[in-house]
Amino acid sequence: MPNVSKRSQEVPLSPFRKLATLAEQVKQEGRKVYHLNIGQPDILTPPGAIARLKEMPFSIVPYTPAEGLYSLRKAMAFYYGRMGIPVVPEEVVITTGASEGLQLALLTCFEQGDEVIIPEPFYANYSGFAQIAGVRVVPVKSNIETGFTMPGISDFEALITPRTKGILLCNPSNPTGTFYPKEVVLALGDLVRRYGLFLLVDEVYRDFIYDGQNFFSAMEISGLEDHVILIDSVSKRFSACGARVGALVTRNREVIEQVSRYAKLRLSPPFLGQILAEFMLEEASEYLGPVISEYNARRNILFERLSAIPGVVSYKPGGAFYCFAKFPVADADHFCEWLLGSYSYKGATVMLSSGSGFYATPGLGIDEVRIAYILNQTDLHSAMDVLEQALAVYPGRLQPV
Amino acid sequence: MPNVSKRSQEVPLSPFRKLATLAEQVKQEGRKVYHLNIGQPDILTPPGAIARLKEMPFSIVPYTPAEGLYSLRKAMAFYYGRMGIPVVPEEVVITTGASEGLQLALLTCFEQGDEVIIPEPFYANYSGFAQIAGVRVVPVKSNIETGFTMPGISDFEALITPRTKGILLCNPSNPTGTFYPKEVVLALGDLVRRYGLFLLVDEVYRDFIYDGQNFFSAMEISGLEDHVILIDSVSKRFSACGARVGALVTRNREVIEQVSRYAKLRLSPPFLGQILAEFMLEEASEYLGPVISEYNARRNILFERLSAIPGVVSYKPGGAFYCFAKFPVADADHFCEWLLGSYSYKGATVMLSSGSGFYATPGLGIDEVRIAYILNQTDLHSAMDVLEQALAVYPGRLQPV
Repeated sequence: MPNVSKRSQEVPLSPFRKLATLAEQVKQEGRKVYHLNIGQPDILTPPGAIARLKEMPFSIVPYTPAEGLYSLRKAMAFYYGRMGIPVVPEEVVITTGASEGLQLALLTCFEQGDEVIIPEPFYANYSGFAQIAGVRVVPVKSNIETGFTMPGISDFEALITPRTKGILLCNPSNPTGTFYPKEVVLALGDLVRRYGLFLLVDEVYRDFIYDGQNFFSAMEISGLEDHVILIDSVSKRFSACGARVGALVTRNREVIEQVSRYAKLRLSPPFLGQILAEFMLEEASEYLGPVISEYNARRNILFERLSAIPGVVSYKPGGAFYCFAKFPVADADHFCEWLLGSYSYKGATVMLSSGSGFYATPGLGIDEVRIAYILNQTDLHSAMDVLEQALAVYPGRLQPV
Repeated sequence: MPNVSKRSQEVPLSPFRKLATLAEQVKQEGRKVYHLNIGQPDILTPPGAIARLKEMPFSIVPYTPAEGLYSLRKAMAFYYGRMGIPVVPEEVVITTGASEGLQLALLTCFEQGDEVIIPEPFYANYSGFAQIAGVRVVPVKSNIETGFTMPGISDFEALITPRTKGILLCNPSNPTGTFYPKEVVLALGDLVRRYGLFLLVDEVYRDFIYDGQNFFSAMEISGLEDHVILIDSVSKRFSACGARVGALVTRNREVIEQVSRYAKLRLSPPFLGQILAEFMLEEASEYLGPVISEYNARRNILFERLSAIPGVVSYKPGGAFYCFAKFPVADADHFCEWLLGSYSYKGATVMLSSGSGFYATPGLGIDEVRIAYILNQTDLHSAMDVLEQALAVYPGRLQPV
């Protein structure tokens, strides 16, 4: 019997999917599970866009161009223009989700053995995409005590080697919800300019910024046209994660050309998702306002509830719909498993992502968790009731309540 | 300015997409282009399935499990069962098209530097997927004179090295339309058993078999459960190329487990395409009969028309909807470009794929083309009129008419 490859066995498992099998069992046993572990919001996909997709006459579900439907590339370019990022459709390649966009960016910009610097904790699947591309992830540590603000530029500089080819930034951050303001983005821009690096920016949560802050995209930095590559997705913006439609956007035409070569290999992004995306983009301005308010309200609930739990360290995240929290436990992995598998309060339990999976440095984040506030306010309160009670009685609790 | 990677510049361009820009220009100039170059059929996607998708109530377009909707995995397993391949849903992973399935199979079964033997000519994008995975493609030559029948087992054996990890077979073949009968599949099965190799079988065209032949899948060979990995897709079967839904099927549970790890990285196959696929599978038995008859009629037209053109060498393909032909030209690449860019007959021209891009061995197939018979019979006749006239007047023609 032939063996599977070693590399396949070393693919990092997503921490937010690791407990999925256990969750299924728990549900079959009749316990309710509040999912605060994944990025699948309960917000409706724009209803008008779904209705228009259903009304659209089509009799064949065909390949689209490998770079995506031109009409969608145009609609995306228009959306970016309104965000202060003037681009033409030819600078937009439609991808099968941000996942594919990031994979193609890594293959296009990095050789095997090249290095990418990423502030940690970071979106866990970055490690997997880097592994496929043979790119080495070099983490630069940020801390929960400061709400995961950006490490100093000198921390980045200390990690730059002859193999460093780029920096990857998720703004606002999944998994921490940290929003990096303009001066931080500019400082990183200055760094990549000085060292001739790529700056890959994952801005899929760009619309979800709170407290009246203004989002500043790395794509807005003038003089960095050849350095900056934007990875985007309609998944979170429109609560359409299953559309599998994202975009890779850059003014570096050589990058566009090589990304297109890879894109041609897989022939086409999904047709139906692209049609839906076009309709959703047309509704963006009316749709997003109430959605952002709703996430903001949930964020405030989460922050208040976490602040009220003895021994929990957290912060008020500035964007996205995630937050990290430090629990008074020795091993958050064990706590999350116990919480899901062995605990219930009023017939329900909560699924969280343990924090360590979001760090590349072993040993970091072992007492931390990521919480996605993707449940409605009532459910979020109920989930926090469960969590509060659970932390009080968890046998592995480190500090007395 | 940072450089793009060398590997991205070495991604082989799909021969059937290479002339795409020129085709757009030609169309804008007002000439009609008959596309015999790509695998996008003009056959309708099952209308009942599209109608049911439109009627289905849903208000969120969500992630599905990484391995696909369980209901779709079940429907696929049922379909394979009817084909004589009893599998359970857990042996089916839904992929974003066969493209992704093949990519995941290569990553899961091969290390960097391992070798895969493939009969050439082969589907050109195999080279690209192998390049991404760092797998070396070792071609074994088949010939147009015999209709690309399978090379002898000794030809395969002569190429096996310590790095050989598997054989990749497309049956029936894209790009040649060659159908490999049961004894050929059994012989390859015996070979992989003896050498402990994987046998990857791309059977996306399995339903399109003519002349009363019976399809025999490598999945039917008993004792090879751990060796055989089936790559499949709904794209061609249901003329739903844009659904981006395929499957990787194997009884080797370790392979399933590792493929799932990679699948989790990209979170989910497309939701809408999966729903459509489920509905399409339910209609398979009524839908496929007339479609197969139609392709058979087109195949017969193509074969008769090619046979009537002086100097053309071809054969009657046994399956899929492709055929290779050898033209009396020195450079089919040049002929295809001339045909598309500089020739017209009754205001129309034809787009073909030149053959060399389907060979890994340099210099092979330079006077060959691939023809996809994906146009209705009237258009196919018109396209063949153009081709016949063009070959008669092509300035680079080698033999007198």
